[in-house]
Amino acid sequence: MKFTVISCCCVITRLILFHSCIDICRTLSLVLVISWVSGGFRYFNSVLMSGPSSLSLRSHTCGELRSHHLGDKVTLCGWVQYLRNLKNKKSRYISARHLKAALCDLTAESVIKVTGTVRRRPVGQENKGMPTGEIEVLAEDVEVFNVCRQLPFEIKDFIRKSESLRMQYRYLDLRSSQMQKNLRLRSKLVMKMREYLCNVHGFVDVETPTLFKRTPGGAKEFVVPSREPGRFYSLPQSPQQFKQLLMVAGIDRYFQIARCYRDEGSKPDRQPEFTQVDMEMSFVDQAGIMSLVEGLLQYAWPAENGSLKVPFQTMTYEEAMRDYGVDKPDTRFSMKLVDISEVLLSSEIEFLQSAVSQPGGSIQALNVPRGAVRKETFPVKLLSVSATEELLKRTGAKPGDLLLITAGPLHTRPLLGSLRLQCAQLLESCGISLRNPSAFHFLWVVDFPLFLPKEDEPGQLESAHHPFTAPLPEDKQLLYTEPHKVRGQHFDLILNGCEIGGGSIRIHKASEQLHVLKNILKEDPSLLSHLLEALDSGAPPHGGIALGLDRLVSIIVRASSIRDVIAFPKSFRGHDLMSRAPDLVSDEELKSYHISVRWPTEEGEMK
Amino acid sequence: MKFTVISCCCVITRLILFHSCIDICRTLSLVLVISWVSGGFRYFNSVLMSGPSSLSLRSHTCGELRSHHLGDKVTLCGWVQYLRNLKNKKSRYISARHLKAALCDLTAESVIKVTGTVRRRPVGQENKGMPTGEIEVLAEDVEVFNVCRQLPFEIKDFIRKSESLRMQYRYLDLRSSQMQKNLRLRSKLVMKMREYLCNVHGFVDVETPTLFKRTPGGAKEFVVPSREPGRFYSLPQSPQQFKQLLMVAGIDRYFQIARCYRDEGSKPDRQPEFTQVDMEMSFVDQAGIMSLVEGLLQYAWPAENGSLKVPFQTMTYEEAMRDYGVDKPDTRFSMKLVDISEVLLSSEIEFLQSAVSQPGGSIQALNVPRGAVRKETFPVKLLSVSATEELLKRTGAKPGDLLLITAGPLHTRPLLGSLRLQCAQLLESCGISLRNPSAFHFLWVVDFPLFLPKEDEPGQLESAHHPFTAPLPEDKQLLYTEPHKVRGQHFDLILNGCEIGGGSIRIHKASEQLHVLKNILKEDPSLLSHLLEALDSGAPPHGGIALGLDRLVSIIVRASSIRDVIAFPKSFRGHDLMSRAPDLVSDEELKSYHISVRWPTEEGEMK
Repeated sequence: MKFTVISCCCVITRLILFHSCIDICRTLSLVLVISWVSGGFRYFNSVLMSGPSSLSLRSHTCGELRSHHLGDKVTLCGWVQYLRNLKNKKSRYISARHLKAALCDLTAESVIKVTGTVRRRPVGQENKGMPTGEIEVLAEDVEVFNVCRQLPFEIKDFIRKSESLRMQYRYLDLRSSQMQKNLRLRSKLVMKMREYLCNVHGFVDVETPTLFKRTPGGAKEFVVPSREPGRFYSLPQSPQQFKQLLMVAGIDRYFQIARCYRDEGSKPDRQPEFTQVDMEMSFVDQAGIMSLVEGLLQYAWPAENGSLKVPFQTMTYEEAMRDYGVDKPDTRFSMKLVDISEVLLSSEIEFLQSAVSQPGGSIQALNVPRGAVRKETFPVKLLSVSATEELLKRTGAKPGDLLLITAGPLHTRPLLGSLRLQCAQLLESCGISLRNPSAFHFLWVVDFPLFLPKEDEPGQLESAHHPFTAPLPEDKQLLYTEPHKVRGQHFDLILNGCEIGGGSIRIHKASEQLHVLKNILKEDPSLLSHLLEALDSGAPPHGGIALGLDRLVSIIVRASSIRDVIAFPKSFRGHDLMSRAPDLVSDEELKSYHISVRWPTEEGEMK
Repeated sequence: MKFTVISCCCVITRLILFHSCIDICRTLSLVLVISWVSGGFRYFNSVLMSGPSSLSLRSHTCGELRSHHLGDKVTLCGWVQYLRNLKNKKSRYISARHLKAALCDLTAESVIKVTGTVRRRPVGQENKGMPTGEIEVLAEDVEVFNVCRQLPFEIKDFIRKSESLRMQYRYLDLRSSQMQKNLRLRSKLVMKMREYLCNVHGFVDVETPTLFKRTPGGAKEFVVPSREPGRFYSLPQSPQQFKQLLMVAGIDRYFQIARCYRDEGSKPDRQPEFTQVDMEMSFVDQAGIMSLVEGLLQYAWPAENGSLKVPFQTMTYEEAMRDYGVDKPDTRFSMKLVDISEVLLSSEIEFLQSAVSQPGGSIQALNVPRGAVRKETFPVKLLSVSATEELLKRTGAKPGDLLLITAGPLHTRPLLGSLRLQCAQLLESCGISLRNPSAFHFLWVVDFPLFLPKEDEPGQLESAHHPFTAPLPEDKQLLYTEPHKVRGQHFDLILNGCEIGGGSIRIHKASEQLHVLKNILKEDPSLLSHLLEALDSGAPPHGGIALGLDRLVSIIVRASSIRDVIAFPKSFRGHDLMSRAPDLVSDEELKSYHISVRWPTEEGEMK
């Protein structure tokens, strides 16, 4: 009888249990041989005071044993990963007959403890491809902690499972080496971030409440009924107000890995709770916060991904919209938008001319290299030779490229911007390499407009980000004359075309904040009276940023969804498929919260 | 014109602004003199890459300047702490007339920036009692960032404020040196804990959901309506289920500084949200977890409180109840309960005899040293001389002591236990020193009963802690025969008589867990079917503990309430007095959650 133990990642111990020794050297990292040593069972209690096996029933994790452990008595604990019974094969080891009864019921994923001695693998059975491939363990005792029932799926990375099955049995799904890696990397990344903020820069980790008051326009905030009739707490979307109040309170440098909540309603792929790396500083300017974040990411960046170069590239909102048609450009590839209004203005194509003559109208081109099916000369018959030449020159288009052209008002650029990304995907799906999959392109986008016209009421302005952002110093006077022209001290951090953070310098004068709320945004300032009072109570200049931790980690580990970097995420529809939350609650239980359910009637009305 | 800058704690900079130089040396740590230097304003942007002034508009915090900074050009930012205008005094410094206009409107707590040069204080004006007392700053420029309005109270530690005023203006209250110290100590303590768990012992920081499913008997769980009619999330009281599931998932060592929620209804001094240091380990026994926690506290313990001695004292539940009448004894003083049943059994006092003859009946004594008003001989006339002598001998009572005696069934001991604490308070309020106010007595209480009779239904058992606690190995068989006799592998951590943590080894076999839920607790196991399934899927032996962080920090900083170690706590009644949460929410907004408010009618009924 022969046992084999492997480790599938650095800490979790996974065992492969063979009743014979076939194939051992080919696939496994550590061979463990059971034999009965008289004197029997010795309970091993590690007294190590640090490391992954400190204070544990095991002496080592499987994956850490090496040649220098030869002769050591070790105790290993873990899961049986493979189990094969080849009864007819003879073993060169003493068979531990009395253990057979206990072990013959074993199933894969059962949990056992094995005590034995590390020795060199027999000649010819070494596995040079594995760090533990030179040794095996002569086992003296095995204890079965728990026998595993038949599982809904095998714990093998190559086994494909549906998303819903993974979610329903998340505790099994998390045993996969990829999910283990994701969660462990996330933990380490956050730890390094904390070290940087606390130990390097003197930040104070402050916990802010999640049972708070509804904020103005907080349509996406979950409500929590209290035991006072009609009164509700709200789960905030961010600690924005609290972190500003902490600056007024003299905390000077605040950070928090903050749980935030957003009720996206019927939007798919939503996570109702998510995590932000939330920071705020007093007596700082925009450059200071940008440097802080660059230093933070550089310090915490996982070594296996290489080192980060700082400072990151910076681009204005204006440039981003002009060149990429989007405020979060993916700069891993070029394919910039080109304004060709001038070139085509002289053409006699009527719809182009009318597009350009509109206010803000322009003609934009996007060259998709190798995007055309057939390689042929540029077939634009409507243009003059000189205009065609000028067009090819400006866009850099070559035979075989595809040239996409839009004409119309300003908002045609976002359309072309989104076409740019779709073309990139299409090209890559055809095997044309465009973006380096292991590249991390960080980018700051700055000088955003402070206000944008409301979508449903364009005569009215709304905050481009939030109402607390300060204007650029040089635009400050425009607040009182032409607010739509004001640029804000807001800056977004983009990684590979995803927004992973947004920060700003805040308004620290009550009169300015009141003007923005009341006169520009037409909001009821009484809902923020505590913040306005605070700004009038000695508020320092301050600013901060929040990074989306889930998104950041998912890009680092190249996960397709943030669900792959969250231990227990909700499904597309906001359900916990394992515990079946949200769940029905009895009328009786709701009574103490003074609420009752309005069941939809057949007509779709509420009772 | 003269300015004085002091620092009231190590990081936050607070300024004292004098228009004259009276008294400067007596009270202040750092003298700052404004004078106009031609060439004027220089914008200082620190390029320091670490420390409390990195990336900041200031070059130093006020409190860090020393003699070795002499001659340095510094920029300081902060709050004006005192401001006196003694116009008739002549200054020996050049008066900065053109600054007067800007500065004459200044109020206390306004925010300014001062740039100047560090120099030695004039002879005779040094303050040896302050670390910054040898130097002053010759100021060259002042910028006013924000003028402070009239405040509801002065920011001085000696100003008494009502609790509700403090809560309403929490951002001002937090500027006090005590609250600054509390929040900064809490942040540092947590950081050290993380270092110990992550870096020393290889724990993985995993975030678990707070939008979860209602747990069986979860009467204290807030509900959160979802957008599906009748379906609610619940805010969990602890991540108990998730941390066990993470062990099944092979995470091996989990920790989280976890936000937890408990709706205590009308109970006063409740915090609806609080924080736990939550840990769980696989392949560990009770001793392992206790060592882990001892090491954790020793590592993270604030240096200013001396070092912690480990291991902590351990006591069984039985001993604690016997000697102290409570399961969380305050061991900073003796005054133990003494069983004197034997002594008084032979007396002819009828009610004593009948008390002892009851099942579990006993007579208990508590000696309160110096508790009697008059020093006289022990006046127990009903007892024989020999019984009196025996009584005095066993209780150690001396003239002037007070002897409290209870007779009755077992539960009279808790009464005496609570009398013990009240007597200690009374003695201390009379100036009799009993407990060292700077002592920290940690104590483990172990071997708790696994089940207790339900209060309202004594024939029925309920979990003493929670249904997942494993029995002591030697009591395991009693689970199936005499469950009320089973002791659990549960252990509480007590600090100065407060429970600050509770941990246990968990049941890791599904059949055992099912037996406890179904046959002993008579609960519906289907509500925990996901956990039972998980235990059957290769659950390792595991255990863990949760420490109450708010309580622990409040004891360390000797705060009278946990509200003093939470940045934005709720009031006694669960209100946020600053923002006025919980708040009314419109019917319209509640519609999307399919709930409506049941307003109480005049008769106290719900509509």
